[in-house]
Amino acid sequence: METERIAVLAHGQFPERAKTAVGLLRYGDREVVGVLDRDQPGRRTVDVVPGATETTVQDAPIYADCTALLEDRGPDAVDTLVIGVAPIGGGFEDAWRPDVDAALAAGWNVEAGLHYRLGDDDEFRKRARRHGCELRDVREPPTDLTVAEGTADEVGPRVVLTVGTDCSVGKMTTTMEIVRAARDRGVDARAVPTGQTGIMVEGWGIAVDRVVSDFTNGAAERLVRAAAGERPRDRPGGDPLPAPEEPDLLVVEGQGSIVHPAYSAVTCGILHGAAPDALVLCHRAGREAVHGYEDTPLPAPERYVDLYESLAAPVHDADVVAGSVHTGGLDPDLAQLRIDEFGDGIDAPTTDPVRHGAADLLEAVL
Amino acid sequence: METERIAVLAHGQFPERAKTAVGLLRYGDREVVGVLDRDQPGRRTVDVVPGATETTVQDAPIYADCTALLEDRGPDAVDTLVIGVAPIGGGFEDAWRPDVDAALAAGWNVEAGLHYRLGDDDEFRKRARRHGCELRDVREPPTDLTVAEGTADEVGPRVVLTVGTDCSVGKMTTTMEIVRAARDRGVDARAVPTGQTGIMVEGWGIAVDRVVSDFTNGAAERLVRAAAGERPRDRPGGDPLPAPEEPDLLVVEGQGSIVHPAYSAVTCGILHGAAPDALVLCHRAGREAVHGYEDTPLPAPERYVDLYESLAAPVHDADVVAGSVHTGGLDPDLAQLRIDEFGDGIDAPTTDPVRHGAADLLEAVL
Repeated sequence: METERIAVLAHGQFPERAKTAVGLLRYGDREVVGVLDRDQPGRRTVDVVPGATETTVQDAPIYADCTALLEDRGPDAVDTLVIGVAPIGGGFEDAWRPDVDAALAAGWNVEAGLHYRLGDDDEFRKRARRHGCELRDVREPPTDLTVAEGTADEVGPRVVLTVGTDCSVGKMTTTMEIVRAARDRGVDARAVPTGQTGIMVEGWGIAVDRVVSDFTNGAAERLVRAAAGERPRDRPGGDPLPAPEEPDLLVVEGQGSIVHPAYSAVTCGILHGAAPDALVLCHRAGREAVHGYEDTPLPAPERYVDLYESLAAPVHDADVVAGSVHTGGLDPDLAQLRIDEFGDGIDAPTTDPVRHGAADLLEAVL
Repeated sequence: METERIAVLAHGQFPERAKTAVGLLRYGDREVVGVLDRDQPGRRTVDVVPGATETTVQDAPIYADCTALLEDRGPDAVDTLVIGVAPIGGGFEDAWRPDVDAALAAGWNVEAGLHYRLGDDDEFRKRARRHGCELRDVREPPTDLTVAEGTADEVGPRVVLTVGTDCSVGKMTTTMEIVRAARDRGVDARAVPTGQTGIMVEGWGIAVDRVVSDFTNGAAERLVRAAAGERPRDRPGGDPLPAPEEPDLLVVEGQGSIVHPAYSAVTCGILHGAAPDALVLCHRAGREAVHGYEDTPLPAPERYVDLYESLAAPVHDADVVAGSVHTGGLDPDLAQLRIDEFGDGIDAPTTDPVRHGAADLLEAVL
């Protein structure tokens, strides 16, 4: 199968608030032909993403808009336009409409993970039909989900789950960094995406936070079984991929936190549905209360270890074997202090995988 | 507001496999004019429900079908036909169609909690429109749910949640028995229904297992706030009821179990979203493994206490203050032994509220 070539829309938010765009550049297998950002035309991704090098981030030019990319490279250079930003509320911004129209007119597919469904937009649907393109809404879950059977623990590969002390602490990033480190060591590892960015990066997966609550555990179980090669993988907007060979290691992207006032249901469903063999606890340095719920302080790191392990055990035993601390923005000494503190708290090897790579995490989870 | 008068369809399954019908007879405020069961026409509910008396179960005649009830009582005797059975899979059985057709022709509403939506049935929809009746699908969640704000702990009433060691261990029954005991003592108590039977019994609520997983905690929070009188309650298929006075006690119906391989997400979402002040742990005597997941043994009772309390604490402190054991079918001595064993395990007052009433449970939760 040929590598899909994508353009990534990230107007006005690249890179700080374009988590999906940066995820695609950092971890995606798809070739990024260009990023669309009307604020930074003429620059290159590697110059704009903090700390990026050509080995850690795909280097690609930034264009003002779709038309500029088309003028430079022509319609055949790209297969799919990906919406690489997710505004609060998940709406579609009207300012993006000319880019989507131009992409469809050029025969490209359009992919998004917004609450707003591209497929519900009459104009886009008409245009996509006319030009023979796909509209892919990756947050739309499969329609045939069921309750979990309790069978994810029967798969062949070792299953690792990234869990968190809160939202936005680096679970997706840690997942991808462990997979990258594994591949660097010749371990056949596969990421199991449970959220929109992970799905766009990997090109398959289920947005577990969008499924019917009764099927939360079932969706996680289905993802693990699919990634283990048991049946065709779910690919948003496309045909099922052929069943892959069974890999050695699955790294499941966790969501939320088990003590999050709003998102704990999804966290718990993934913990039991995916039935991991080991957990990596992710934390953001300096976070002291649940983000957005500031009167709910975070428990101590060791408390999280107890909670995750004791909750997992009755379904499938899983120990917290490593920690991952997001230290972005801290100077190196303070970053190391925060990493060491957290590692002492959870009594397990801990690092910041973006700063230092995930070789230590890989060692701990294998 | 006048008491709604209902007929309850329970063909072939009454009472053993008609949990909803029995719930309506045992706990509902609505007047049951008749039960439809083609296998037992001419008998009365009190003679058929095991252990029933006229003070614990509404006494009503059983009719062979809707036509027989209409012949006996006329069309004006009933407001609504309720489907009081839920076959595995949640489908609508074609054998019920003549009853629904007759009910709609008589001008009655029809209410169901099936996966199959009455409102999706063209025939029913046409007929309901013609006769000016409502089709109420009580499992259909509101369309305007959101993520939890973490505010259920701010309501005035004391909030109690029934939690379980497994599914089908008596959480709904325990909820209703505590509310009944409270009212007997003059405490203004209100049940907070989270599942289809509870919703039908109380006439409002949200089937929390049907909401988008990200809104699980939010749905529980909304129910608690609504029951506390903060805003109009959600009533399936009808207009919002006027906001009630603030009660003294809310008893939230729990779902599943925190270590259930398939349903733990919903359990966890209710635990954090409802932010209860106290928990009542429900168990079915003799249950040793998760029902339907027989290779997953149930943890010891004291382990459940640790799990529920430690998971609740970071969001809102809640202790297990009482136990409820479903001893149906056991002789009195063995039943008491099982109750005592469980009470010793959790170190809290424990009873079977159907056998002995819920006065002790009420005492413990207040």
